[in-house]
Amino acid sequence: MEKTDPKKDYTARTVILANGNFPSHPVPYGVLMEAERVVCCDGAAERAISVGIDPVAVVGDGDSLSVELRGRLGSKFIHDANQDDNDLSKAFNYCRKAGWKSLAIVGATGLREDHTLGNISLLSDYVTECDVVMLTDHGVFTVYLRSATIASVSGQQVSIFAFDPMMAISSRGLKYSLNEMRLSRWWQATLNEAEGESFRLEFNGGPVVVYRTWAVR
Amino acid sequence: MEKTDPKKDYTARTVILANGNFPSHPVPYGVLMEAERVVCCDGAAERAISVGIDPVAVVGDGDSLSVELRGRLGSKFIHDANQDDNDLSKAFNYCRKAGWKSLAIVGATGLREDHTLGNISLLSDYVTECDVVMLTDHGVFTVYLRSATIASVSGQQVSIFAFDPMMAISSRGLKYSLNEMRLSRWWQATLNEAEGESFRLEFNGGPVVVYRTWAVR
Repeated sequence: MEKTDPKKDYTARTVILANGNFPSHPVPYGVLMEAERVVCCDGAAERAISVGIDPVAVVGDGDSLSVELRGRLGSKFIHDANQDDNDLSKAFNYCRKAGWKSLAIVGATGLREDHTLGNISLLSDYVTECDVVMLTDHGVFTVYLRSATIASVSGQQVSIFAFDPMMAISSRGLKYSLNEMRLSRWWQATLNEAEGESFRLEFNGGPVVVYRTWAVR
Repeated sequence: MEKTDPKKDYTARTVILANGNFPSHPVPYGVLMEAERVVCCDGAAERAISVGIDPVAVVGDGDSLSVELRGRLGSKFIHDANQDDNDLSKAFNYCRKAGWKSLAIVGATGLREDHTLGNISLLSDYVTECDVVMLTDHGVFTVYLRSATIASVSGQQVSIFAFDPMMAISSRGLKYSLNEMRLSRWWQATLNEAEGESFRLEFNGGPVVVYRTWAVR
């Protein structure tokens, strides 16, 4: 039986809708539909508009927009042909320049796996500049630059990822304790479980990527 | 327009069906249906049988098998309650012990993102023991322990991932050349493109994970 975490509130004033799987789980879908403003990666604009979203901006190189939709968007279409940034980063940079610092990213996973991997790791860059989470149909990704206490529900599935295989991580409040563990592979700290209303990760160096599922065992 | 690579042949004598998204793209679906033998992670058994697959083994702790299906499987159900291995590794270990060394993994991505990440990185461990590829609905993951020349199609999208941020990688035959590049984030060598029928990666250390899309621009 799936229970979503009733205590979690991922409401963000600005939601970025990326061009992966359109959210169907009630948490990311709700956050998207109740956002104060939505910024779309251009490939996601058509679907967003079809469900009644009126994006404040649609950012990208425009290749995936029809001529008709581009015309209808008018000045809301923000052309960014930068080859060094992916679609998500173009939307993020637009928000950053606009001064919008409370961000939730939805629709960033679920299709091409290389996009999923890239988008998850980009959170680590974004989090130095703003308050950002990534919500998927299965859970939430958050990134920590220093040791943190993280809200949870007893039985919630937790996975932890790092980019530096030399960095030691320890935990309190997880079913399988990490003791100065160094993560040289992505699977090594996955499939853990929260024991209560929070758990603690201790490390020097960061960033550390934490994934918590909506489903609770 | 999507073109799949006509020169690629990912036929493997043994296919492991994991418990992520059941394959719908013709390449992984075809490889699954034409396998000499299929080993299922237990959560994938029901779906496999429903499309006419007769697995040689269904491996796992059995929690996701109905009593009825477990009864019907009889000795084909291989109970493995090891808490240290995930479902995919239980199936892999079964194949390894059986001496089956030509493996394709399908259905290992597309649902919980932490499973996707873990399963992709497990390839790096498996490849030391057998010839293994991971096929998804969007592309193929292969892992290299030393410098390699890799088949491609001009315009094929290519992404490269490493686990060691200190390891330098160089490329020939990709649109955006890697020159002694060190990958400290998963996005850094994504969204590249093959220029011809092969490309070359040079590095000391490994493993390097390569993703090639089915779609060709």
